[in-house]
Amino acid sequence: MRIAVTGAGGFVGRAVVRELAARGVSDVLLVDRAFAARPSFEALAGDLADPTVFARVGQADAVLHLAALPGAAAEVDPAASRAINLDLPLSLIEAMAGRRLVLASSIAVFGGVLPRHVNDETVPVPASVYGTHKRMVELAFADAVRRGTVSGMALRLPGIVARPRGAGGFGSAFLSDIFHAARAGEPYVVPVAPEATSWLLSARAVARILVDALLSDATDGEAITLPALNIRIGTLVEALGEVGDTSGFTYAEDARRRAVFGSYPPLSTSRAEALGFRADADLDALIAAAFDG
Amino acid sequence: MRIAVTGAGGFVGRAVVRELAARGVSDVLLVDRAFAARPSFEALAGDLADPTVFARVGQADAVLHLAALPGAAAEVDPAASRAINLDLPLSLIEAMAGRRLVLASSIAVFGGVLPRHVNDETVPVPASVYGTHKRMVELAFADAVRRGTVSGMALRLPGIVARPRGAGGFGSAFLSDIFHAARAGEPYVVPVAPEATSWLLSARAVARILVDALLSDATDGEAITLPALNIRIGTLVEALGEVGDTSGFTYAEDARRRAVFGSYPPLSTSRAEALGFRADADLDALIAAAFDG
Repeated sequence: MRIAVTGAGGFVGRAVVRELAARGVSDVLLVDRAFAARPSFEALAGDLADPTVFARVGQADAVLHLAALPGAAAEVDPAASRAINLDLPLSLIEAMAGRRLVLASSIAVFGGVLPRHVNDETVPVPASVYGTHKRMVELAFADAVRRGTVSGMALRLPGIVARPRGAGGFGSAFLSDIFHAARAGEPYVVPVAPEATSWLLSARAVARILVDALLSDATDGEAITLPALNIRIGTLVEALGEVGDTSGFTYAEDARRRAVFGSYPPLSTSRAEALGFRADADLDALIAAAFDG
Repeated sequence: MRIAVTGAGGFVGRAVVRELAARGVSDVLLVDRAFAARPSFEALAGDLADPTVFARVGQADAVLHLAALPGAAAEVDPAASRAINLDLPLSLIEAMAGRRLVLASSIAVFGGVLPRHVNDETVPVPASVYGTHKRMVELAFADAVRRGTVSGMALRLPGIVARPRGAGGFGSAFLSDIFHAARAGEPYVVPVAPEATSWLLSARAVARILVDALLSDATDGEAITLPALNIRIGTLVEALGEVGDTSGFTYAEDARRRAVFGSYPPLSTSRAEALGFRADADLDALIAAAFDG
């Protein structure tokens, strides 16, 4: 079975590549605009908007679509987000007729004001360009599955840590920078209060889930929210102090970042768990895995 | 103020044109692929996919976008629906930056299995290509309003009666054909049981609402379900017997049409009513208005 992974040169993509290699999967095509290091599988450097690149992806038996314009970048350029985060996945859904497609969606579909508890019945009300386009793609995918033209699933990713420093376009970058500053023993101004909470998943854990989804036979048109640890930021900083040095950390809350990335309620993900998808076991496991790769 | 109406040659479009004329609105551009009769305003016959036609529409101060590929046609040609029912309105939302846009959405966004009562909190779960694309456009419009780039509203139309006989692409055509057969005194096989229920609105009533929305200053990003009469089909046939002849009517239920067009629960439309939008006063008023124009 021929597998293609888009966005394969990105942070989550590289973790997926490691997971595919660890499982002995061999017939893999990696696609991204560029690759920082020489990948372990056949790699095609090019833009998915290029029809020849797109056609190569569309020939695979199963595609994992990770490529996206991140949220902060989407907000300042809605037209680019439409092209990358909407039009491309819609064309991929059409191109993958009769085959398997796993789409990376996002908890950004839930928007700004969340209910007191989020579960599989929570209605997505996007409040960003990125979340809106992700939700639109979820609806189009659900309709394609209803019509029986494609199999697979759309998975809503929470915050993934620890992204490399200076990862562009992510307003949530501080959630990863906390890890890097602690490991380096550097001073760091945490832009949310210790009481802030975020849903976090390590790259290793999300890669395991994405590859499970890609290799399974399960199909569900309705988007699936992935499990995550619901982490209090102050608790994270304390735990990082055990493995690194957070003595130079201070807190200076930015209201918008607290609202968007630090106000997550308890989360239930029964549908994901029924499919065998698991978050990191606990905070220590998350921290260990976050520095992996 | 320059107004443009797309789909102006269609059934709802012609009712809107009559309403605009009755209100003395003068600076109007009508656009459709073709016009059956000479319209009372400047008319541009052409396809909105043609950039010159699209640009003319996008220059107006306020646009009422009615043009669509109907549901049954969308279901057999999802790619055409994507072009007409998704890509075009998305481009129109972008083109109308800084100005006013009223979009015709549809109760098709609610999909197949409705709750026991539908109100403004009911979550749309589309179950058709048409309903999916309409819902996607609602989300994109809500996001554009959130960003402050466009004003206006998206209105969900119920079944509009009485469409001309043989109106193409509408699975709901029987709801209009009942009227025509009764008026002509012809035999008719009603494809749902007398107990079936549908939300109906006359073309005159919907035109009044659409023109109100176009000429008002109100903006709401969240799509608004329009009021309608919740009509039992057997009651409709009896009432039509008073003004026409339904002695040749028989019933032979088609399960799919009953499910999609004849199983509507009670409807509450508080948000629409707060904006002054009104359904036909009663069944007799609906029947009288249904034969108007």
